[in-house]
Amino acid sequence: MPVAETWLLPDGVADILPTQAHTIESLRRRLLDTFAVRGYALVYTPFIEYVESLLTTNNVGGGNNHDLDLVTFKLIDQLTGRLMGVRADITPQVARIDAHVHPIEGVARYCYAATVLHTRPQELSASRTPLQLGAELFGYAGLAADLEMIDLMLTILADAGLTQNLHLDLGHVAVFRALAAIAGFSAEQEQVLSNIYQRKSIPELKEFCQNIAHGNDFLVLGRLGHDLSALAAQLSPEARQNVDVQNALDQLATTLAHVQTHWPQVDVSVDATELRSYHYHTGLVFAVYAPNLAVPLAKGGRYDGVGQAFGRARPATGFSCDLYMLTGYLTQEEQIVVAAPAGREASLQTAIAQARSAGHVVVQALSFGKTTNALEIDHRATHTLVQVDKVWQIVKLES
Amino acid sequence: MPVAETWLLPDGVADILPTQAHTIESLRRRLLDTFAVRGYALVYTPFIEYVESLLTTNNVGGGNNHDLDLVTFKLIDQLTGRLMGVRADITPQVARIDAHVHPIEGVARYCYAATVLHTRPQELSASRTPLQLGAELFGYAGLAADLEMIDLMLTILADAGLTQNLHLDLGHVAVFRALAAIAGFSAEQEQVLSNIYQRKSIPELKEFCQNIAHGNDFLVLGRLGHDLSALAAQLSPEARQNVDVQNALDQLATTLAHVQTHWPQVDVSVDATELRSYHYHTGLVFAVYAPNLAVPLAKGGRYDGVGQAFGRARPATGFSCDLYMLTGYLTQEEQIVVAAPAGREASLQTAIAQARSAGHVVVQALSFGKTTNALEIDHRATHTLVQVDKVWQIVKLES
Repeated sequence: MPVAETWLLPDGVADILPTQAHTIESLRRRLLDTFAVRGYALVYTPFIEYVESLLTTNNVGGGNNHDLDLVTFKLIDQLTGRLMGVRADITPQVARIDAHVHPIEGVARYCYAATVLHTRPQELSASRTPLQLGAELFGYAGLAADLEMIDLMLTILADAGLTQNLHLDLGHVAVFRALAAIAGFSAEQEQVLSNIYQRKSIPELKEFCQNIAHGNDFLVLGRLGHDLSALAAQLSPEARQNVDVQNALDQLATTLAHVQTHWPQVDVSVDATELRSYHYHTGLVFAVYAPNLAVPLAKGGRYDGVGQAFGRARPATGFSCDLYMLTGYLTQEEQIVVAAPAGREASLQTAIAQARSAGHVVVQALSFGKTTNALEIDHRATHTLVQVDKVWQIVKLES
Repeated sequence: MPVAETWLLPDGVADILPTQAHTIESLRRRLLDTFAVRGYALVYTPFIEYVESLLTTNNVGGGNNHDLDLVTFKLIDQLTGRLMGVRADITPQVARIDAHVHPIEGVARYCYAATVLHTRPQELSASRTPLQLGAELFGYAGLAADLEMIDLMLTILADAGLTQNLHLDLGHVAVFRALAAIAGFSAEQEQVLSNIYQRKSIPELKEFCQNIAHGNDFLVLGRLGHDLSALAAQLSPEARQNVDVQNALDQLATTLAHVQTHWPQVDVSVDATELRSYHYHTGLVFAVYAPNLAVPLAKGGRYDGVGQAFGRARPATGFSCDLYMLTGYLTQEEQIVVAAPAGREASLQTAIAQARSAGHVVVQALSFGKTTNALEIDHRATHTLVQVDKVWQIVKLES
């Protein structure tokens, strides 16, 4: 490979240079602190695992979802010859921890912030190495846990400077799942219809519903999935009186009211046909969008039983986001970079130590006397450390 | 795979659970702050790159070292069909940034803290996913840069609570390299002899030196590599007067004196036959050891020209360590975890927000009235939030 090309990076892979890295690092700390003081305990999960442990969420919710398998890089373990994967999602790892490694009785809360790797970008122009930040709550089936998770997600976004023009989408996969059970769908029928809902194609929906039992309920769902009272009114009596449908619609109504009360600046809507993560989730689902962004800033929902593959199926809800997508909404603090002369004398060393304790960057010249230009000591220099009347002082550079 | 085995992790791979993760996270922040205020700018390098960019240090120093190649996991880029590697070392990536992506004129300082992946543990019982923390300084060939790097390494260790019983080993690969040049060694001879020095096998050294030119100089190096003045005195006149040998011995003497003066509590010694990273380094090398640990806590040295593969060969020095190895030397602060009752009333929410602002963990019950036991709200609870005379107070749990 010629020199001219050795610095080329693969598509969807990037260096994060100092200014942006500083911003991301600050935000990462602030968000992890927000998690921590709310009881979400930080875990570091391993970068590689055997594929059987990594791909367990393929089957949560009774589905058969190969998405995670397709985005997971595979490696051979040279110590055992077994197939390993590089984590493409951290949720299955935290589920493994809750189920087996750290089996708390009662409610357990975890958070994480770490790089995951995808074989292909998940969306057009997306990174293949997102910095996944998220939280999970295990062991509580009630809606209070889902509401805590939505509050936490919106708090995190506010911490990142995102308070205006947010749109929150609420969904609930149990509405469609209960209707599909009433209609006696096969797994294949369920899959076909959930895909139609995802395409929001009313003509296809009409055609599909013509020759199936309870077809009208699915048409009603497609047309009125955003309007809870109209939806409940127009479903067939059998669907309307189904306990799973009722619970799901009640949870959506309560959540909608909760967000409208406590997050008045967030634009919130319901879409009971939001089934994108249908195979993964089991209850309430939610996603936050910013203007001009096609992919959600953060998303999550309930996925009860996620730990089943590890021998402990508990209620679970959580959310995650790509930290890289959250940067850029806070105004930058200006950084003070002080260029100091070379030297080991005590007064100079004390002055440098004091400035560093105050959080200033202080770079000391490496050569004695040769450098008078602060920008040669550090190209970012904004100030210089100079002795005035035997006292070391930080002086702003003229620009 | 049966449920009972899905939680098994590959050898050399581990979960980091909350208590330890909290410790590592705190230490990571403290050490990155130490870097930052000294002018070391944080960079995030990509987890995957084309192998040609990742394996450039195989040839630094004129050697032909396949160690990095062997520990690097290879992946096929599904977008291009090209071979990628998962980073096993961050130094080549930072060299790429200095050479091409962020080409600062003059001195450039970078730091990083990120997971790397190794196909096999580098040492017995070592992790295959170390958390590599390090710093690099580019663009300064003088010894002042090496001394800054040694000071920084010892400062980082002190930040981690490591101040006592440290041993610092100093070496300089230019001594051996200059002697090999004088003797007119082939690359193969250099390799064989450097391996003998690494095994510290005097009988093998004697045998090897019997039939080569300048054999006595190599014997002297093997016997007196730890004693700078005796070494200089007993080398042949040709070796003693060689400018590269003289420079290397001068640098070792200056560095030894520097450490003895400024780090009196550190036990320091010289070993001019320390050639473990011979192919990688080009000048002064150093490693810090703690008692009862066979592998160094931190190590580094000069590797001028590391950016050559990227079209910009600059002087460079740096060090790195595995952050996981540095944990456990600081005493743990006790964490306050407050269990609070459920509820949205303003006085309770204010009390919770105040406690969280003070850095306390506050976990609110998810069920109204059902839970009276703080440990059911959070198993870690040390305190509880209770209303006394209409005032919310944090009360320590009786143990």
